[in-house]
Amino acid sequence: MTATTREQCLSLDRQDPLRPLRDAFALPDGVIYLDGNSLGARPRAAAARAAQVVEQEWGEGLIRSWNTAGWFELPQRLGNLLAPLVGAGEDEVVVTDTTSVNLFKVLAAALRVQGLRSPARRVIVSERSNFPTDLYIAQGLADLLQQGYSLRLVDSPDEIDAAVRDDTAVLMLTHVNYKTGEMLDMAALTELAHARGALTVWDLAHSAGAVPVALRESGADYAVGCTYKYLNGGPGSPAFLWVAPALRDAFWQPLSGWWGHAAPFAMEPDYRPRSGVSRFLCGTQPMTSLAMVECGLEIFGRTDMQALRAKSLQLTDLFIALVEARCGHHPLTLVTPREHARRGSQVSFAHPQGYAVMQALIERGVIGDYREPRIIRFGFTPLYTGFADVWDAVEVLRDVLDSGAYEAARFQTRTAVT
Amino acid sequence: MTATTREQCLSLDRQDPLRPLRDAFALPDGVIYLDGNSLGARPRAAAARAAQVVEQEWGEGLIRSWNTAGWFELPQRLGNLLAPLVGAGEDEVVVTDTTSVNLFKVLAAALRVQGLRSPARRVIVSERSNFPTDLYIAQGLADLLQQGYSLRLVDSPDEIDAAVRDDTAVLMLTHVNYKTGEMLDMAALTELAHARGALTVWDLAHSAGAVPVALRESGADYAVGCTYKYLNGGPGSPAFLWVAPALRDAFWQPLSGWWGHAAPFAMEPDYRPRSGVSRFLCGTQPMTSLAMVECGLEIFGRTDMQALRAKSLQLTDLFIALVEARCGHHPLTLVTPREHARRGSQVSFAHPQGYAVMQALIERGVIGDYREPRIIRFGFTPLYTGFADVWDAVEVLRDVLDSGAYEAARFQTRTAVT
Repeated sequence: MTATTREQCLSLDRQDPLRPLRDAFALPDGVIYLDGNSLGARPRAAAARAAQVVEQEWGEGLIRSWNTAGWFELPQRLGNLLAPLVGAGEDEVVVTDTTSVNLFKVLAAALRVQGLRSPARRVIVSERSNFPTDLYIAQGLADLLQQGYSLRLVDSPDEIDAAVRDDTAVLMLTHVNYKTGEMLDMAALTELAHARGALTVWDLAHSAGAVPVALRESGADYAVGCTYKYLNGGPGSPAFLWVAPALRDAFWQPLSGWWGHAAPFAMEPDYRPRSGVSRFLCGTQPMTSLAMVECGLEIFGRTDMQALRAKSLQLTDLFIALVEARCGHHPLTLVTPREHARRGSQVSFAHPQGYAVMQALIERGVIGDYREPRIIRFGFTPLYTGFADVWDAVEVLRDVLDSGAYEAARFQTRTAVT
Repeated sequence: MTATTREQCLSLDRQDPLRPLRDAFALPDGVIYLDGNSLGARPRAAAARAAQVVEQEWGEGLIRSWNTAGWFELPQRLGNLLAPLVGAGEDEVVVTDTTSVNLFKVLAAALRVQGLRSPARRVIVSERSNFPTDLYIAQGLADLLQQGYSLRLVDSPDEIDAAVRDDTAVLMLTHVNYKTGEMLDMAALTELAHARGALTVWDLAHSAGAVPVALRESGADYAVGCTYKYLNGGPGSPAFLWVAPALRDAFWQPLSGWWGHAAPFAMEPDYRPRSGVSRFLCGTQPMTSLAMVECGLEIFGRTDMQALRAKSLQLTDLFIALVEARCGHHPLTLVTPREHARRGSQVSFAHPQGYAVMQALIERGVIGDYREPRIIRFGFTPLYTGFADVWDAVEVLRDVLDSGAYEAARFQTRTAVT
């Protein structure tokens, strides 16, 4: 089933119905890009879209473009394009601000909802291995609120069950772990949280566009996520936010800027939230970066998450099998779960010299990234990664390890960004 | 002194030492753009810069550009370019997030500082006519904190003196009013606030690049502002934030994302703020929109705020004089102060049919904007606005008013954005 020669990999590429989508991306020559889980590759259409915003919409349209170029409705329009990828409905998602800022909004909203329902619940449960910025934001909010709000961090998903108690306001989890690539069971954990009276906040940074997500079906309460990883929105492109319709109008989130106001141009001195998810908008958005998000989402419109998931699992299965077959004599430990149901769209291995190994790979054009401690991480984006890419990447890894070339690769600067 | 013929205006343009700077901007044909206080015009260099970020830095550099293209240091680098325009020092300003989000950060920091110093102080004093989003953000924060935090709004600057009392934590003001164009005395009001034990938060949205600002010299505590108005950073380009050095390390602001962490790539589960103003960074920034901010700031590097202020006052004096001389028989009321020390870089008139008048002007290529109630607003950007532009704009206004053409200009959609 799994390819064991490069020729078989090329054959898989030829048979791959998703292969034509690769042409929608501009990938640099001489690079095998396995870091789309940090920054997605550039859709070819993005250059023209940026030029259109800068030259026509800004340069020619000027302030008129708020209406004529649809700037005012862009966060909602992009949200509607993104919604099917995460199992959300129409008018349930907005694209705006950063993941960190959006997490602050939904976490504050969730705590407020609990404050009204069940004020003794003041604990946010999360994983110690959650993406750090999520923990930092929760810490910042708890510190701001004082009044006994705090975090309870567990060391493994197995401990979540015991940690969600009658003092728990929110279970805040990242669906796919940035470091290990482990995927959590959103439906089961949401059910567990609800059974204990807690609300759920899901970070989909490594899920949206990477694995099928069923926000509505799983009963989740709040979600945030990133558009610049698997969604290929561009460097630092604005993030997204989803709130379960039943909770949306319960509370106006504290970052209550003009764009979330019911009558944003009436210039009223008092805040009145818009109805729906648009109340989670805050200030004016960076239009050039925001507009390019559409170029990535448009490519997803040509396929579906089931097809992408099938290929993603083929790619990660193949990578694991080839590394173990061809580099098995080196001290590599698979960190990512083998079980499909628990695996995102990345593969991580631990290696005692992980940082140096990754630097040597990058020097040779195989771009993954490194995460403390000792983890080399490879993201597989089925939109533009092929089976022969996997073969070639493993060959370079084998060469780096066999030759000891990484021993020379000692750099001080670390490139790692989420 | 003031020109009274078009020929005299043309002569002023020929003598204007700032005139060559106009060539740095791409302005559409057939338009007199007097709305740079809502969205600044496009520097010609911005198109190439956007293309560079999208095609080279994103497309070719991919994740490596965090180091190789200087993304990681960009908020600080742009902050250092901006600092001289607002009287701030090196490493005191960052360009990041939105004005609304930044206001939340500094307001939360100011309240926390007061909470430690003088916990009974729980009132934020501001003007009812402040830009609404500023009030909304303060309301959102007060509502989040509960514990008796509240706003006290005054109806005119004269009432500030009486409103700042021993219960006052923060005096939060916008330096130049978005609607009237009135400029407040930052040094005097800061002194007043400090004498009463209050801290000051200044919104420089309509000041930065428009009038000289002396943050350090005036003793101000916190400031935020906008880069897409007079600084010509592009639609929704990220905002800026300044904190007085003495206060900077006093508190970690609650939007404590990864970029403000002391060791952002160590992936520690606990937040530790960076030292300096960089702790006010939060999440990943929209690089294409952020990078273009430099194109606007670079143009300011070719002149100085004193020269710009002198021309700005000439332009607004001329506009007021010509409107009063040539349109004086219409029901126009000057809203902007005549006194130079109290005037920003815009002129506002009230007219009973203000909305329709502005629509008719825009149809004829004179782009200003409308603000409730009845105010037509004209921003003057000395970098690209000339004296003959002022003459021509007034002629179009006169024609619109004399002919009653505006009576036909009834649109439902309102274009107004900040």
